[in-house]
Amino acid sequence: MRLALGIEYDGSGFSGWQRLTAAGTLVPDGSLQTALEIALSRVAGAPIDTVCAGRTDAGVHGQCQVVHFDTEALRDSRGWVLGATTNLPPTMAVRWCVPVADDFSARFSACARSYRYRILNRAVRPGLQRQYLSWERMPLDAAAMHAAAQALLGEQDFSAFRSAQCQASHARRNVHTIQVQRSGDEVVVDVQANAFLHHMVRNFVGSLLVVGRGERAPEWIAQLLAGRNRTVAGPTAPSAGLLFLGPKYPVECRLPAEVTL
Amino acid sequence: MRLALGIEYDGSGFSGWQRLTAAGTLVPDGSLQTALEIALSRVAGAPIDTVCAGRTDAGVHGQCQVVHFDTEALRDSRGWVLGATTNLPPTMAVRWCVPVADDFSARFSACARSYRYRILNRAVRPGLQRQYLSWERMPLDAAAMHAAAQALLGEQDFSAFRSAQCQASHARRNVHTIQVQRSGDEVVVDVQANAFLHHMVRNFVGSLLVVGRGERAPEWIAQLLAGRNRTVAGPTAPSAGLLFLGPKYPVECRLPAEVTL
Repeated sequence: MRLALGIEYDGSGFSGWQRLTAAGTLVPDGSLQTALEIALSRVAGAPIDTVCAGRTDAGVHGQCQVVHFDTEALRDSRGWVLGATTNLPPTMAVRWCVPVADDFSARFSACARSYRYRILNRAVRPGLQRQYLSWERMPLDAAAMHAAAQALLGEQDFSAFRSAQCQASHARRNVHTIQVQRSGDEVVVDVQANAFLHHMVRNFVGSLLVVGRGERAPEWIAQLLAGRNRTVAGPTAPSAGLLFLGPKYPVECRLPAEVTL
Repeated sequence: MRLALGIEYDGSGFSGWQRLTAAGTLVPDGSLQTALEIALSRVAGAPIDTVCAGRTDAGVHGQCQVVHFDTEALRDSRGWVLGATTNLPPTMAVRWCVPVADDFSARFSACARSYRYRILNRAVRPGLQRQYLSWERMPLDAAAMHAAAQALLGEQDFSAFRSAQCQASHARRNVHTIQVQRSGDEVVVDVQANAFLHHMVRNFVGSLLVVGRGERAPEWIAQLLAGRNRTVAGPTAPSAGLLFLGPKYPVECRLPAEVTL
């Protein structure tokens, strides 16, 4: 039987999503994946391997990560949700559990992923919400950042915004929407794409901050994209501001509304 | 010279606002007040005593606490803000500093105070934002809670919602507004009053949760208020969900807009 789970986590204390040890090694290794697999294995009474929609980096948070796994254990959805959550660290929770078709993949069935990046923009560092914010002390022109970001829309080669460690076979991705909006002292960047390269959102934000501070014109982002050269773009923005809102699946997958396109 | 400061803090790791040691004892004692006075004294080069608008309890957060203090040290506002913040723990920050009249008091000049209480209302405990949320697993009827809460408006005797440790000379307070609203999985309670008794907001919320779960009719809140008996009201809600939004002062005090009525 194949099941899908929605997972929420504060990534502050973790090494990132990906398991650092061999599959089935149920010893904590600092990763979110291993913490989840230990919890699920206790509920199932047998080792559980999971596949996720988006492997987040160290310090990145998840609002609705989706995973799938196969099991012969017979538990109802409530049993999986409450049983696994009880066995998780306090900064992780299972939000829901639904049965899915045998050919469903949390990774390959997803047709979109969304991220949010929060920047506190004021003279003083954050005191409240500091684990969920990055901080920029120079005044940001959010309208210029938004205008610049529109050059990133559509299917393009994102080599300029891909980390050197990226393992993807090619750099073409399709950015569906990207919005930069100010709300009081916060500047929020929301991005949806079919999929993301390693560090792609944080590299978008790092270059958009250069535009927001007025050090480059908005057209610079289009030039960076066309140049396909990571070394001339802005720095990678810090992980703390990044939240993986979650993936989206076709309606046929019969998943909860929040992860259905 | 008298100065006023706006202070932001995550109260999770603190014993509460109030200093636990003698004034001028500049040794960390787990309180927010002492942490602030140590930081300000380093900037001033002399001991600093502060007076605050609202003494928050252990675990309660502050978005814009206001304090005043007297000093002979000559620093500009930027110097106080950045200098003090550098010397504060990472979960506290000074947001602004303005000179005020010699008769201004952060405590006695305030004509209103506002609090927000956030309840995550779902079957599973929070993973994200857990230090800023309380949690209720039973479904809450936010409309019933809002209707019930309206009985708390106006100048009344709030003995039914006052902790046994409350040191106020009388229990009459004037509640200006109280709103209970659902936003997705969260139920948010916003309250403004001229001033608050000890545990007053958390005791309001504890009894409103009884109504929200359907265990009592909305009219029960009015009955509790009229009875003036703390022992028959609901339990005190946990501190983590509570945020002191800040005080409000008359326009004549010339403070920033966010703390001006």
